[in-house]
Amino acid sequence: MSDPSINIFPTEVYAERLERAQAGAASAGLNGLIIGTGAELAYLTGSWLTTHERLTALVIPVLGTPTIILPAVDRGDLALSAIPDLDITVRGWVDGENAHQLAIDALDPLGMEMMGVGIGSSITADHLLPFQELLPVGIRYELAVQVLKELFVSKDDAEITQLRDAGAAIDRVHAKVPSLLVDGRTERDVATDLEELILAEHTAVDFIIVGSGPNGANPHHSFSDRVLATGDVVVVDIGGTFGVGYHSDCTRTYVVGGPDTQRDPEFTKLYDALHAAQLAAVAQARPGVTASSVDQAARMAIEAVGYGEHFIHRTGHGIGLSTHEEPFIMAGNDLILEPGMAFSIEPGIYIEGVHGARIEDIVVITADGCETLNNQPKDLQ
Amino acid sequence: MSDPSINIFPTEVYAERLERAQAGAASAGLNGLIIGTGAELAYLTGSWLTTHERLTALVIPVLGTPTIILPAVDRGDLALSAIPDLDITVRGWVDGENAHQLAIDALDPLGMEMMGVGIGSSITADHLLPFQELLPVGIRYELAVQVLKELFVSKDDAEITQLRDAGAAIDRVHAKVPSLLVDGRTERDVATDLEELILAEHTAVDFIIVGSGPNGANPHHSFSDRVLATGDVVVVDIGGTFGVGYHSDCTRTYVVGGPDTQRDPEFTKLYDALHAAQLAAVAQARPGVTASSVDQAARMAIEAVGYGEHFIHRTGHGIGLSTHEEPFIMAGNDLILEPGMAFSIEPGIYIEGVHGARIEDIVVITADGCETLNNQPKDLQ
Repeated sequence: MSDPSINIFPTEVYAERLERAQAGAASAGLNGLIIGTGAELAYLTGSWLTTHERLTALVIPVLGTPTIILPAVDRGDLALSAIPDLDITVRGWVDGENAHQLAIDALDPLGMEMMGVGIGSSITADHLLPFQELLPVGIRYELAVQVLKELFVSKDDAEITQLRDAGAAIDRVHAKVPSLLVDGRTERDVATDLEELILAEHTAVDFIIVGSGPNGANPHHSFSDRVLATGDVVVVDIGGTFGVGYHSDCTRTYVVGGPDTQRDPEFTKLYDALHAAQLAAVAQARPGVTASSVDQAARMAIEAVGYGEHFIHRTGHGIGLSTHEEPFIMAGNDLILEPGMAFSIEPGIYIEGVHGARIEDIVVITADGCETLNNQPKDLQ
Repeated sequence: MSDPSINIFPTEVYAERLERAQAGAASAGLNGLIIGTGAELAYLTGSWLTTHERLTALVIPVLGTPTIILPAVDRGDLALSAIPDLDITVRGWVDGENAHQLAIDALDPLGMEMMGVGIGSSITADHLLPFQELLPVGIRYELAVQVLKELFVSKDDAEITQLRDAGAAIDRVHAKVPSLLVDGRTERDVATDLEELILAEHTAVDFIIVGSGPNGANPHHSFSDRVLATGDVVVVDIGGTFGVGYHSDCTRTYVVGGPDTQRDPEFTKLYDALHAAQLAAVAQARPGVTASSVDQAARMAIEAVGYGEHFIHRTGHGIGLSTHEEPFIMAGNDLILEPGMAFSIEPGIYIEGVHGARIEDIVVITADGCETLNNQPKDLQ
């Protein structure tokens, strides 16, 4: 288990990210950024502060000192972040104050003409509409993540180390899965064991999917009281939160009693196609190609053997401080892959009412290809 | 424990709510509403579908049939809601389609001039900005909850029955708390017991606060490994999810070993002031007064005895399908209370480093006053 006392990067990491955020906003012609709670705030300050309906926002003007606006009663929670050590003004607000106006004021400390604002993805309509009401009509709004794509989407070495260690952690859990899949146990029994095993290697459990037999055909299944029987195909997709807040996410497909007990030749053909598709997508993942081309590589391999209509989801999603983020590996995403981008490659084939199969690794784009952060065998186990 | 099979109201309840939503949007001069996942969607359709970054939205045009737009892969989850039985078009989308454009199209099935749109509070910036990009410049945006305040904020009889039963459920848990607060146990030991007791009366645990001694002075404390000692003041604030998704939320303040073991006369004075303040706020809660006046009633009673600066939060929050919603009982909220509005009244006094105290009941406004839905004794126990 990671040391829970080391829960943020050194202060200078966040100081540099804030400077780059200011520079990014400036070169996009924006007056600044308004960031909500969640992964973006954690990326910039180390804070996982949560908020209910009351406004908490980090306001980053292109010139001057950032301000965090939050309910005064929550100020104590900032001690868990790098904010006390950063050059960030803390402005606690109390009922009766207009928190949205405080944020707008912090966005423009120098009284410049307002041209546009970058908005954090997690800001909800009950805050964004009041901001828009207070800001001049006709200014430009962009998602902060669009402006700061490089900053948010490409991981630096410290982040990749976190993701690599997270990958090794979930690999150690997968190594124990075959011993859990015993005839007569339920999916829930297995999930209970997995919860303990994931926690032993992470700070929190994110999700557990144990999809046996027909349940494996639903990519959104979690686990049920279904009893496992020898020869059942089982999709196991698990992930946890690691270190300073990075996530693991890895899927393997197993057979109760071992692969030799699975005697359906149609499934063998299906699984071989899936395995080939996953490898084809990994081979396509390199700098300079589009995210959609990686999706297409997996899809073509599956369509070539006639299972195209059974691959019912995108090939992958970015991963970092959140479990789902850019780059999304899907049709229509023209984003060009660059070194440092980290995402899942997880094609699946689902036969409704019968079974499903999925193979998922996290990869990170390198100078000339990609590094696979999960390294358990991909054969049917 | 409530019967988990009864997890939604009869279909006609949602059909009527949808009709009222259309009428409300029409009389507000809007073309329709775009509602995100969460309490608002659950209120209108019984669906607690969750979504990640992919758009799920209920689009309600003022004329014509509502449409739910969601990732095609999530369609199976609608079976848990009233949507299959309602006159709602289901439009699953796949990668490569523009989900935001699909929503805009559904908003305007008759090709009318676009005047304005009501937006659900939970819609995040990564969806709201794309909507605004596609909609004509200069139209009006309102929060759906503003347009439909009556619908969302005032509870009908079926909802009040749910909240009343939820109140009785959490009261039964509080009745057992004195037996849990034993010298030598930790806050965590007590929380573990509370988790089991809340689950026995609810479908899920929402939160558990066991704030003993100095921890009681932090209104956001959860629980820790602090060991209880006879004479310690302990704030216990607990809540769960009940029935079709309504919430309980109730706080009482206890003394380990019973009230007689607490010998600090200053605390007795503090607690008596708090008790009087809570009763004053309940007495103020009636139709025709502002939400802020209820806050003021509690605040004046506490200020009168010199503890004003130690009452560091608002007096209360609305409760229903979410734990925090309008009406917010706080300074500056001019909302006029009406029959059917349900909210907490929970003044607290916090002495940093020493202890805290809070008394919280849920009340619902009646024709001439309010009904208190929590009925455990408010004396120090």
